[in-house]
Amino acid sequence: MNVERVANKLGITKERFEGLQETIIKRSGWPEPHLFRFEKPATGIEAGTIVFDNGEIVFGYPKIKRAMMLGPAIKRQFSGTVAVEEKMNGYNVRVASIDGEVYALTRGGFICPFSTEVARDLIDPHLFEDNPHMVLCGEMVGPENPYVPKDIYPIESIEFYLFDVSTKNCSQLKGVYATHRIAKEYGIACTPLLGEFRAECATQRIMEIIRQLGKKGREGVIIKDVENKVSPLKYTSSQSNCSDLEFAFRYYNDYANDFFMSRVVREGFQAAEWDESPEEMKERALRLGESILLPLTATIRGKMRNEQIVQQSQFRVKSIQTARDFEQHLRRSGTKAVFDMPEADGDGYIVRILKLVMSTNDKTQAVIDGQPW
Amino acid sequence: MNVERVANKLGITKERFEGLQETIIKRSGWPEPHLFRFEKPATGIEAGTIVFDNGEIVFGYPKIKRAMMLGPAIKRQFSGTVAVEEKMNGYNVRVASIDGEVYALTRGGFICPFSTEVARDLIDPHLFEDNPHMVLCGEMVGPENPYVPKDIYPIESIEFYLFDVSTKNCSQLKGVYATHRIAKEYGIACTPLLGEFRAECATQRIMEIIRQLGKKGREGVIIKDVENKVSPLKYTSSQSNCSDLEFAFRYYNDYANDFFMSRVVREGFQAAEWDESPEEMKERALRLGESILLPLTATIRGKMRNEQIVQQSQFRVKSIQTARDFEQHLRRSGTKAVFDMPEADGDGYIVRILKLVMSTNDKTQAVIDGQPW
Repeated sequence: MNVERVANKLGITKERFEGLQETIIKRSGWPEPHLFRFEKPATGIEAGTIVFDNGEIVFGYPKIKRAMMLGPAIKRQFSGTVAVEEKMNGYNVRVASIDGEVYALTRGGFICPFSTEVARDLIDPHLFEDNPHMVLCGEMVGPENPYVPKDIYPIESIEFYLFDVSTKNCSQLKGVYATHRIAKEYGIACTPLLGEFRAECATQRIMEIIRQLGKKGREGVIIKDVENKVSPLKYTSSQSNCSDLEFAFRYYNDYANDFFMSRVVREGFQAAEWDESPEEMKERALRLGESILLPLTATIRGKMRNEQIVQQSQFRVKSIQTARDFEQHLRRSGTKAVFDMPEADGDGYIVRILKLVMSTNDKTQAVIDGQPW
Repeated sequence: MNVERVANKLGITKERFEGLQETIIKRSGWPEPHLFRFEKPATGIEAGTIVFDNGEIVFGYPKIKRAMMLGPAIKRQFSGTVAVEEKMNGYNVRVASIDGEVYALTRGGFICPFSTEVARDLIDPHLFEDNPHMVLCGEMVGPENPYVPKDIYPIESIEFYLFDVSTKNCSQLKGVYATHRIAKEYGIACTPLLGEFRAECATQRIMEIIRQLGKKGREGVIIKDVENKVSPLKYTSSQSNCSDLEFAFRYYNDYANDFFMSRVVREGFQAAEWDESPEEMKERALRLGESILLPLTATIRGKMRNEQIVQQSQFRVKSIQTARDFEQHLRRSGTKAVFDMPEADGDGYIVRILKLVMSTNDKTQAVIDGQPW
């Protein structure tokens, strides 16, 4: 690896690149190919940026800011035309070809063995043959995945939805039109384009879209400048905010308090902006209250019946080795999980896993045993 | 001040007492008498402990632990008989006589000029003439106070409720019977004693008491060992938990996220322990949801109408000087407040104050102006 050249492409000096190692830049020696990853952001470089040993860089996918109040946020951010795409609820991966092999990279900059197998299965290999430097940014979505299993989409197992495209060694994203062109050309699923609107009349249209998505339990939208001149914004439905709360309150002591508060505050801003009637507010308050209280009591009652509180999920692999590798991947990411024996099914295997939420288990048990707070 | 003797009474060495200064022990040179206060706890010494310049010590009032699950917590903590007293919702003060003058001391170890005036007015001076070393531990309660104004009690302005008694230079509390004896002897109001129960059958009785208190919007109970052998426990009503949330969500960015989460989790444990029906759960979920959503949207809508978000309160003083001193007291405690001109009323003055909640004002305004999160 030519460190001088890599540093130059990152926009920093060789000395700074070396100085960041062991603090911000971490080494990953497994699986092949070996790489350096930015565990945290550095000046101008997104967290999750990866430098492979061959010197190629895949930049981290930038965090998309959230509109808390839709109208004012759109007005402040956009002029001209915006494209509104569905924000799919799954997990973010970047897919790239390194030395002729396709890899799926996690948000944090690891190679994920499971996602890599899925990407190789779902993405037409001609894409990287024709475009060896392309990086696909997309969401892995569906009920059978170990990270964010959701059955709110008509997906049987897992699907890859492209939402942006970039190039190795370059942090610039290509934007809406280039993304949809590539998706069409290679038959890749794309996050649905729900409409294009002039910025000044987008708010009303998006509110209507959000209401419709919410009714179906879907997450929300990404609002993009069609000319890719400014960063996109995200905005989510009340049902999605509450669904996050419902999930996290089952494991109330294993999530940061910020996670809860930010979602609750979103509900306040949405209700205020939408100028809801007392009846609508009551409905929202009940939804919010239930999304907190029901999972909390379910967890406590479960523990009172001596059940172990766990997060269950399952996924499919073509080879047993992928399951083994994924187990090692989860372990090195710091997640404690118990893997069942893979079960043959069709041309592959179903793997069921239980993630342990030790803090919630321990705290709940202690309170049930009479520990004061 | 004989530092050797003071350190000895605190149970630490002279060197340690001197070593703690400027880190844990802070100096207060205003108002008279001058004192050292423990801003944080030190080994075996409660935060809020005060050492006056004459060498006398008033120990900090110990934090009372909370029963999250009533039955198991009582079983673990108590045997024999427990006294159940109402937990009044106000602010905690200790009242003591130093060099012949009565002072009210805040939880943090400051002399509060307002509470001092109230204490001198409400507490029979014979008490400290007869018992110059006594320390009264109690709650200042009522609608007219600058800290925790509540109109859920039949109190016109402010009242002092005794809940424990101790002695200067001694960290031991005297317990239920001694407290009620002193209250009766000197005609001081006392936190209501709601019953005495055998520990093994207390849970059901306390649940019933909590339900009744909750209906009246009252806070909850303190459960004490009548023989004062183990520390008391507190337990609160759902209505009080939700009322705390309702208050704090008006100022959502000025309170720590812990404040919200702890109250929400209490609701989960109470619902689980009380084995509530789906209808009762729905009622609780709505109460919880409304206690979050309604104040949040009230704040946001207020800000959209260009209102300033403030905490209003008012209190009565006999002398203008007390109001001035209290203003200085609030300022040195780090609270930003705007004082109205005192308004003559009866034999004293009404003082109205507005506490500023800058963080909530700024954050809400920024979001309304379109700032993403």
